[in-house]
Amino acid sequence: MKAGVIGATGYAGAELVRILAGHPEIDGLILSSVSFEGEHFEDVYPNMLERICAPLVKAEEVISAAGIVFAALPHGVGEPYAKACVEKGIPFIDLSADFRFGDDEITFNAWYGKSYQYPELHKNAVYGLPELNRNRIRELAAGGAAIIGNPGCYPTGASLGVFPALAKGLAAASATIIIDSVSGISGGGREPSRSFHYPECADSVTPYKIDSHRHRPEIMRNFAAMTAAAAPEIIFTPHLAPMNRGILSTMYIPLAAPARDHAATIHALYTDFYHAEPFVRVLPLGAIAATNRVRQSNYCDISIHFDHRESTLIVVTAIDNMVKGAAGQAVQNMNIICGFNERAGLEMIPALF
Amino acid sequence: MKAGVIGATGYAGAELVRILAGHPEIDGLILSSVSFEGEHFEDVYPNMLERICAPLVKAEEVISAAGIVFAALPHGVGEPYAKACVEKGIPFIDLSADFRFGDDEITFNAWYGKSYQYPELHKNAVYGLPELNRNRIRELAAGGAAIIGNPGCYPTGASLGVFPALAKGLAAASATIIIDSVSGISGGGREPSRSFHYPECADSVTPYKIDSHRHRPEIMRNFAAMTAAAAPEIIFTPHLAPMNRGILSTMYIPLAAPARDHAATIHALYTDFYHAEPFVRVLPLGAIAATNRVRQSNYCDISIHFDHRESTLIVVTAIDNMVKGAAGQAVQNMNIICGFNERAGLEMIPALF
Amino acid sequence: MKAGVIGATGYAGAELVRILAGHPEIDGLILSSVSFEGEHFEDVYPNMLERICAPLVKAEEVISAAGIVFAALPHGVGEPYAKACVEKGIPFIDLSADFRFGDDEITFNAWYGKSYQYPELHKNAVYGLPELNRNRIRELAAGGAAIIGNPGCYPTGASLGVFPALAKGLAAASATIIIDSVSGISGGGREPSRSFHYPECADSVTPYKIDSHRHRPEIMRNFAAMTAAAAPEIIFTPHLAPMNRGILSTMYIPLAAPARDHAATIHALYTDFYHAEPFVRVLPLGAIAATNRVRQSNYCDISIHFDHRESTLIVVTAIDNMVKGAAGQAVQNMNIICGFNERAGLEMIPALF
Amino acid sequence: MKAGVIGATGYAGAELVRILAGHPEIDGLILSSVSFEGEHFEDVYPNMLERICAPLVKAEEVISAAGIVFAALPHGVGEPYAKACVEKGIPFIDLSADFRFGDDEITFNAWYGKSYQYPELHKNAVYGLPELNRNRIRELAAGGAAIIGNPGCYPTGASLGVFPALAKGLAAASATIIIDSVSGISGGGREPSRSFHYPECADSVTPYKIDSHRHRPEIMRNFAAMTAAAAPEIIFTPHLAPMNRGILSTMYIPLAAPARDHAATIHALYTDFYHAEPFVRVLPLGAIAATNRVRQSNYCDISIHFDHRESTLIVVTAIDNMVKGAAGQAVQNMNIICGFNERAGLEMIPALF
Repeated sequence: MKAGVIGATGYAGAELVRILAGHPEIDGLILSSVSFEGEHFEDVYPNMLERICAPLVKAEEVISAAGIVFAALPHGVGEPYAKACVEKGIPFIDLSADFRFGDDEITFNAWYGKSYQYPELHKNAVYGLPELNRNRIRELAAGGAAIIGNPGCYPTGASLGVFPALAKGLAAASATIIIDSVSGISGGGREPSRSFHYPECADSVTPYKIDSHRHRPEIMRNFAAMTAAAAPEIIFTPHLAPMNRGILSTMYIPLAAPARDHAATIHALYTDFYHAEPFVRVLPLGAIAATNRVRQSNYCDISIHFDHRESTLIVVTAIDNMVKGAAGQAVQNMNIICGFNERAGLEMIPALF
Repeated sequence: MKAGVIGATGYAGAELVRILAGHPEIDGLILSSVSFEGEHFEDVYPNMLERICAPLVKAEEVISAAGIVFAALPHGVGEPYAKACVEKGIPFIDLSADFRFGDDEITFNAWYGKSYQYPELHKNAVYGLPELNRNRIRELAAGGAAIIGNPGCYPTGASLGVFPALAKGLAAASATIIIDSVSGISGGGREPSRSFHYPECADSVTPYKIDSHRHRPEIMRNFAAMTAAAAPEIIFTPHLAPMNRGILSTMYIPLAAPARDHAATIHALYTDFYHAEPFVRVLPLGAIAATNRVRQSNYCDISIHFDHRESTLIVVTAIDNMVKGAAGQAVQNMNIICGFNERAGLEMIPALF
Repeated sequence: MKAGVIGATGYAGAELVRILAGHPEIDGLILSSVSFEGEHFEDVYPNMLERICAPLVKAEEVISAAGIVFAALPHGVGEPYAKACVEKGIPFIDLSADFRFGDDEITFNAWYGKSYQYPELHKNAVYGLPELNRNRIRELAAGGAAIIGNPGCYPTGASLGVFPALAKGLAAASATIIIDSVSGISGGGREPSRSFHYPECADSVTPYKIDSHRHRPEIMRNFAAMTAAAAPEIIFTPHLAPMNRGILSTMYIPLAAPARDHAATIHALYTDFYHAEPFVRVLPLGAIAATNRVRQSNYCDISIHFDHRESTLIVVTAIDNMVKGAAGQAVQNMNIICGFNERAGLEMIPALF
Repeated sequence: MKAGVIGATGYAGAELVRILAGHPEIDGLILSSVSFEGEHFEDVYPNMLERICAPLVKAEEVISAAGIVFAALPHGVGEPYAKACVEKGIPFIDLSADFRFGDDEITFNAWYGKSYQYPELHKNAVYGLPELNRNRIRELAAGGAAIIGNPGCYPTGASLGVFPALAKGLAAASATIIIDSVSGISGGGREPSRSFHYPECADSVTPYKIDSHRHRPEIMRNFAAMTAAAAPEIIFTPHLAPMNRGILSTMYIPLAAPARDHAATIHALYTDFYHAEPFVRVLPLGAIAATNRVRQSNYCDISIHFDHRESTLIVVTAIDNMVKGAAGQAVQNMNIICGFNERAGLEMIPALF
């Protein structure tokens, strides 16, 4: 099968290309880029010289030639491509926020300032977090065309860390869950700007968009989807740290009952919750998640801890923002849709450095 | 006056030396080191070549020759030097934890595993956080000898961020305050170890000693000292990030009443609280503290924010862990004790990079 | 086939494990470690959790169970293992310097301070730089047992950059070739030390062992092997830079005749020289090699340039010191010895970040 | 005296502001910026909040109000300001290349693509490398108005390392001196671009503008000025490394006669050459210069070494590109011009980290 990537020259697009090029079920790539149309991909990413010998064509050519299409575009411009894929009867996996909110156009509009051009497309779109929606993704695909809204990077790490606590009713009623996240700089994308200019961000840490980041509503929606009870409130503070990749999230979940003597039980609950997941690793009690344990891989590492009174569950998750937080998860979604081995193309073992 | 530094070759000691060498009221340094006794300081720190031409002598010689003594030693070994200084009638400023807990030997023993050798010394020691204890530091000094327990790095940033909220009764009763801190690697000291080996910590973020760090009891004690009400509970999570210096603390303080329409009032309260402080900068509303705004300086920057429901006050503080978090604050204490301009020797303007 | 790694817990050993675990022809790993014998590999490298579920056994067990053995040990301790492999009739690929010098014990002794315990082993060992010795490696293997001395990291990048110039007689007679190299910190290994302690090496660059590094005789020997003329003199200056991986070498080769109007010819000569090499990429004229173009891959990128008078050929090479500079090249040697596809297990596409 | 800075919001300008604010002879700053005119300096550089409370005015107002003017502007736009200062009779210190080439307009034009608007201004301008031109700077100032062309960053480090060898005739006749330099990212200035975007340059090293950098003619001119013999040819290769500040230059100078037994003599010659220089430190034989030994200071550290045949002198210099390589040297020039203590305002002790 040939895979297409619309928007192949942004960081998420290029990571997709890199992963897809090594995917055993994919035997060709068709790539588009508005900024570099007419050039060759390896001229834009010379690290991939001799490996990705593809011209950058128009998006329409991608859709026409590919058996599955990924879009790694800015928010709000992907709908026409989704429509074209549906009409052609092929899956469309969108890495932007456009299809993450299903028919909740109000939330999308409130946070992204755009309206839906083709509202009916969104009704059938599925939010592509396999650990939440694997069955829906499979069913959708069985019906022919499929639109996947691939999750945001922060929501992936936050959701996977909190899901078991919500699903098993560990969180106190009306709890506020605090999500304190630290991201590497590649999360800001390829476009140069003051904030990501080396001397302005190297050797320094700072929060940004405190509890006002666009990923907050996505996290809240995910939490609500995982609990029968009222969804918890959240406070979400993203930070920037001087590293290329990775998101570490430290999350504070007030417990319904103190964990005294129950730490092992709660750990077992987490382990059990994810025992069949190929890309979630619940670390042994005592270990602590770190971004350099998942570097260049599709893993989400989860470690669980307790405050000294054991009244709060502290969950730490680590992902590679470019892989499980973007391109890797998109390929995982393709694998599910297409009936491939879910690990196919995603066997990368994390690099400590 | 001549200043002495016992333990001059650790990172905090060397930073003290660097600051004291530029201090207008200090005209000589006497330095000791157990590890490098007999060598010259500039052989251990060749960055200071031609600037600090001092032999490394015994601690006893430091006390004998100096008019004020700083100790930058491991925890639990400074008491005899404190005693000698008291007997000689000169001030002793200790950068270890030994004199941070006053007569509360139980807490010190519980967290540092040591007993007091000379309990009476601790009765007269003052915790050297000028923003909390300036008057006590002054009074102490007026009585002749003075022992200062210089604060820990994390407690400095955490305390300064939370004090106004506590002093003004903003925090909800029985609130749990979450302190999520990120530290540069120099906080781990000069001794090589796996955790601080470049390839193990570069380009990665991880928490450590989750809610079990020795600085937790110090923070709690500080909070208790600032409020007439019951001290709040805290959860403290330190993280390591790949930067040389700096501590950023993001703190979550549940408010007694929502801040809706009161953000400006609360900001004014913070500004007012610190208006006379030479080294605390309350940033304008909308600005966000970052470690590269205080680099190489004695400032603590504070920015205040609110969660989207305005039910939680989010305070961010940034300090240079080696300066306001250690050596700079020690010099600030000397300035107070000795009646110098409190800014003397500490006029460094932060370096963005 | 099962592969064994003696000394699996150093950085080169662990990188070998990571690569071998994804190798299509290897279906099992047997790992040893003196430091961590009895523990599990994934406890030492938790980044590989759930992927490398291997106990750390004795070296003897590795040799007994494996069909090929890699050793990633300190210099001077591998000979007995090489002997055992030869006796068992299986290949031994040594990542230390022990078998890099063939029967030139004098040079080995002069630079590594050790004598050969089993001199006869060295007679049959081959220096494992495939671009120099592929045929000898193949022939050796055909004879049954094989001992490979896997090249040093600096010599790999330096040799590949200079070989075509020597082979084609471009260098001026009696030229001195200057090799100015910059290495990432992982080159220093896993053992913590002052030099590689984060605050001592982050955000700084420095040379070390100026023209006295142990890799100098290895480079000189390689140069001599590639030219029928007198081997050129070299000056080799390694530097440390604050990055995890990578070696960049900038090399200055005085030309026998000015290149004026011959740049394209020389570039074509380089391209031709390496046209069949799977892991050498000669960049287009105008492009410049950089370590982030080969990160996490087995490539050696080469760019060629000229000084303004065109009297000196300036060659820049970039490798990942852990891959082409160590573990990847070892696997490449295995592939040649065993008749596998030379690219097997080494298909990693470089990661820009 | 009041000092003015035209172009105060670029990195060099801001560093000037930071240094001048602590200068004992300067009691006021007048700052201009085209990009941020009308704003306050501390809004652009919030790290300097509460320290630099200056509005950003027009360049004309700076000249009108100041007793000395610094310009930190792009190349080719400073002449009118220089003219205005001359007419007003005050010194003008230019950090761009505009006045580095004296009346050699041909070279300036060839490398910077601009012509002189006021050629006569250049006749009286002095190249502000105090170690080369201190007397001329002094004399110039005595004549009233003075125009200083402050040196480029690379030429400063390269020149100081090679001067003694040239002045004392150590270099072989017709030698080619190779200058291999590594710079931190701040050298690229404040304007965001792909090359200095964090994920593109972090954790990587690469050369650029190989032997074609604009600083080459400046270096050659400096070398020629220091020797009565024919100026040596040079090859200059700048590299970018992932650090905020610093330039390390490793230089290869073929010796007229081998240094065998003469290392101490040559070292003494270097030491003697700079014995009266306040900001040049010739390290003891055996020590090696590193950028973290001069960080945040005005020092140029020099270490000398020899290749194994002792036929080439290898000189390593380290400077902070923002201080000795730009703003600090400009202040040093001011000190000379104005008859201040040459160390005034430049007493910063290097920070190891």
